[in-house]
Amino acid sequence: MSQPISASDGEYDVIVIGAGLSGLTAAYQLRNTIPGCKVIVLEAKDRIGGRTLTVPLKCAGGTDYWDLGGQWVCRTQHHILWLLKELGMGQYPQFTDGTKLQQSGNSAKPMIRTYESEIPSLPLHVLLDLLNFERKADSLARDIPCDAPWRAKNADDYDSITFEQFLARETWTQGAKDVVEGGFEVVNGSRGRGHSALNYLFYISSGISNKSLYDNKNAGAQESKIKGGAQPLSIKLQERLGQSNVLLSEPVVSIDQSSRSEVKVRTLSGKSFTCKYVINSIPMNCSVSIQYLPEPPSKRHMFIGHTKVGNLLKFIATYKTAFWRDKGYSGEIFNMSTNDGSNYRGPLLYVADATSPNDSPALVGFINNPLYWGNVEDCKRKNAILQHLATFLGSEALTPIDFMEKHWAKEPYNGGCPTNMMMTGAAEYWDEIRVPFHRVHWAGTETATHWMGYLSGAVQSGLRAADEIVNMLTTSEESKGNSSDLLQSLDNLGDVDRRSEVSWTSWGVSGLWTLGKIGLGLVAAGLVTAGVQALLQAD
Amino acid sequence: MSQPISASDGEYDVIVIGAGLSGLTAAYQLRNTIPGCKVIVLEAKDRIGGRTLTVPLKCAGGTDYWDLGGQWVCRTQHHILWLLKELGMGQYPQFTDGTKLQQSGNSAKPMIRTYESEIPSLPLHVLLDLLNFERKADSLARDIPCDAPWRAKNADDYDSITFEQFLARETWTQGAKDVVEGGFEVVNGSRGRGHSALNYLFYISSGISNKSLYDNKNAGAQESKIKGGAQPLSIKLQERLGQSNVLLSEPVVSIDQSSRSEVKVRTLSGKSFTCKYVINSIPMNCSVSIQYLPEPPSKRHMFIGHTKVGNLLKFIATYKTAFWRDKGYSGEIFNMSTNDGSNYRGPLLYVADATSPNDSPALVGFINNPLYWGNVEDCKRKNAILQHLATFLGSEALTPIDFMEKHWAKEPYNGGCPTNMMMTGAAEYWDEIRVPFHRVHWAGTETATHWMGYLSGAVQSGLRAADEIVNMLTTSEESKGNSSDLLQSLDNLGDVDRRSEVSWTSWGVSGLWTLGKIGLGLVAAGLVTAGVQALLQAD
Repeated sequence: MSQPISASDGEYDVIVIGAGLSGLTAAYQLRNTIPGCKVIVLEAKDRIGGRTLTVPLKCAGGTDYWDLGGQWVCRTQHHILWLLKELGMGQYPQFTDGTKLQQSGNSAKPMIRTYESEIPSLPLHVLLDLLNFERKADSLARDIPCDAPWRAKNADDYDSITFEQFLARETWTQGAKDVVEGGFEVVNGSRGRGHSALNYLFYISSGISNKSLYDNKNAGAQESKIKGGAQPLSIKLQERLGQSNVLLSEPVVSIDQSSRSEVKVRTLSGKSFTCKYVINSIPMNCSVSIQYLPEPPSKRHMFIGHTKVGNLLKFIATYKTAFWRDKGYSGEIFNMSTNDGSNYRGPLLYVADATSPNDSPALVGFINNPLYWGNVEDCKRKNAILQHLATFLGSEALTPIDFMEKHWAKEPYNGGCPTNMMMTGAAEYWDEIRVPFHRVHWAGTETATHWMGYLSGAVQSGLRAADEIVNMLTTSEESKGNSSDLLQSLDNLGDVDRRSEVSWTSWGVSGLWTLGKIGLGLVAAGLVTAGVQALLQAD
Repeated sequence: MSQPISASDGEYDVIVIGAGLSGLTAAYQLRNTIPGCKVIVLEAKDRIGGRTLTVPLKCAGGTDYWDLGGQWVCRTQHHILWLLKELGMGQYPQFTDGTKLQQSGNSAKPMIRTYESEIPSLPLHVLLDLLNFERKADSLARDIPCDAPWRAKNADDYDSITFEQFLARETWTQGAKDVVEGGFEVVNGSRGRGHSALNYLFYISSGISNKSLYDNKNAGAQESKIKGGAQPLSIKLQERLGQSNVLLSEPVVSIDQSSRSEVKVRTLSGKSFTCKYVINSIPMNCSVSIQYLPEPPSKRHMFIGHTKVGNLLKFIATYKTAFWRDKGYSGEIFNMSTNDGSNYRGPLLYVADATSPNDSPALVGFINNPLYWGNVEDCKRKNAILQHLATFLGSEALTPIDFMEKHWAKEPYNGGCPTNMMMTGAAEYWDEIRVPFHRVHWAGTETATHWMGYLSGAVQSGLRAADEIVNMLTTSEESKGNSSDLLQSLDNLGDVDRRSEVSWTSWGVSGLWTLGKIGLGLVAAGLVTAGVQALLQAD
């Protein structure tokens, strides 16, 4: 009773695997560049959008939309800015007015306090250590070529140690370690042991600097959000492509290139398609779930064996009022308690204001230790999150109107978020990352050179993969020119930003300001002491 | 024209995925233990045997058989010994008589010399360093519980560093590093950066000691070979199961447990099977190429993300005569030149006599830097191998009767050899390794606790997985007893060996012997010098 292998459910110029932002951008760009190009997108999930997901939640204004996946953009992310403009979508700034809250300490009784500047409130020696680390890391990252981190001068050294070890080597204080490790965990969903120092430096280099990765204003990666959410980017792209050209719930099970002149793609439901080229845009950790005939080069297998995907658990809670703003808080919370593997730190790792452009109050947060908290009963975890919120913001936090979480590692055909990371030893295989496998080309934010791991990186990778195919598929110099001109102009804008970045200076200003305050405090204290002594001596 | 989903191509009690040694052992044991148990084995490749492969080669005696995959067994590998007895298969000792050859040095002109003992010939300070390292590693490994390495007292420490770093920390001389790293690369097909120190210590613990891993006599892992080869183990198991119960060229593409009461298994050709339980015996790196509905726990994904498979390239060369024996060589060659990533070291990493039990002369070898040599043209690589052999053994090596290689990383549905290894950061996920996923149980040598990564580990894992299913599938106390008694008795024999191992003493004896020789040499040199001086003074 086995099924006969069907002839073909369609013949195409290009099959794009994965209807996330990179795959849909690639399909859109192909259709724009080569008139009449026959493209179909095959998506494993029952929805489009990949690692973006915009959901309706009950809120003060009735119902509004929030992002459970990728959401932030900023002014140096030129590839996503291009797409936003192309699709006529707007942005609005991340709300940052007010006092921030931090949790620190390494005892069972963590300490909560407020801070004002870009950097959490730290003892002077920790602050100096942190600033020194950031300066050093930025400086090292500037020497990592984003298109070939494995060629960096000290690539071998940084490939041989974990990020955890790099941090241990380059910092002196536990406090600085806690801030950096916590901050980077929010960004990439991984503790320091699971990826290499080279991966960390590449991440920074691709995102310009530490400051630009962590900031939520002044060109930082979290400075603005997309009006209507990030998933609508994919929805609008799908509309332009025509819904019938994006097939949902069709996980690809095999890519057969044995004929060399065409590619056969089969899906789990038994459908079979043929095409000239494939753009495989699904995350690396998922691309191994496809059976390839013939097999890709063993080096590619080995490369993927040296990567792992991050683990992020995100939540949105909507409220009747933005009660934190009323209390003078921005809504930003950063938990930099020492991560000793236990859970006394509480579930919150990072929280920010998520009030919608329609003024529906909400908070967005990321959960610390998702391996533990992700496997706690739903109601227990929700309760712990709200309780932890309340310790920072007050008891109003306990009664959200709506609450929704997303543990990306549990999403079928995803397995983790935000991106795949390179582990120690990956460097000798890394140059496989964008090498086409015969007629199969690779996209996905992992393959980006600018803002890898971000929405913008996804768009860049889609444009780059499309450009590769355009060059194979058409002899039209006009098409080739249109495709490569766009990609190059956007890449160039990114390169200019990277060259002009003086991130250390900005951090330095912030640090000096803090130092200045401490200095003034010391001087004031000295004057008071001197005054008191003078008075006592005068007696 | 999509294919209708067929009802079912068969209903079974148990579907075993993978017709390697572990899967076939599991199927065989199930059929032996539960009368009438309906078992089918689905194999992706067009052959059985997994990571064993026995091939005919032209040779002095006409044609004989050699192993391109796993081949060695030893007296402490009780699980494979049980299977050999069960199948009526014999062993014969690894030939070791004669002088061994070594290559050392770190210049472009490597140095070749002979040695006699178990340990290569090394300068005194290097020898002491090596012996000290082995002693320390053995001692640390004894504290690693083989069934739960993540629970070892210092698991967190050893999980945080690569094997490369462990080696840097625990040795003082480049020479000792070279010997250990080269030796372990022969065993596990990986350089030191791609796996954790905890993985290394677990490997040793599961294989008893450094000495038992590396030796080719005295209960060392390479002390004997299977008459007729290792793949016939699988062939005989297949015969006992009935050929119709082992389906070839049927790669599984999905395992559907959405009904919870049964499992649906689909293959790439479109066949669909239902069963009560699945034993998934394929290597971890391959098990991710199956789509699971629902998804396995995210922790399992994360675990596999923290593993990678080894990279081994093996060859067999047959000769008219065992010319190396005639010259007094055992055929053993160990290349311990410093691995600086270049290829001046030559392709050979380790070579041994592979003369068949029918006295057909042959050599077996493993290739250094398979990332490089695996991608060199076939004829160029063969030529380099033979030239390198000739520098050790003489020009007769240049003219083999037959020559065959196997680069396991290029084998479809394999991706590497001999086994999957844990990378830094794996410890917090490692306890997922044998946790059944609803009705899917896991086998494969990676999941073994005794001789993990070896033939014996494959057999143990098959028996263990079968035992798990027996306990679910039958209420017969007799069946349960038969199954668990066998497994426990074999495990117990292994435990006894492990406890009674005094490997360091044996290494020590060997080392002391070498030290003794050096000592005698120094004394002799001293006496000669003194004598000469006395003569001169007498003038």
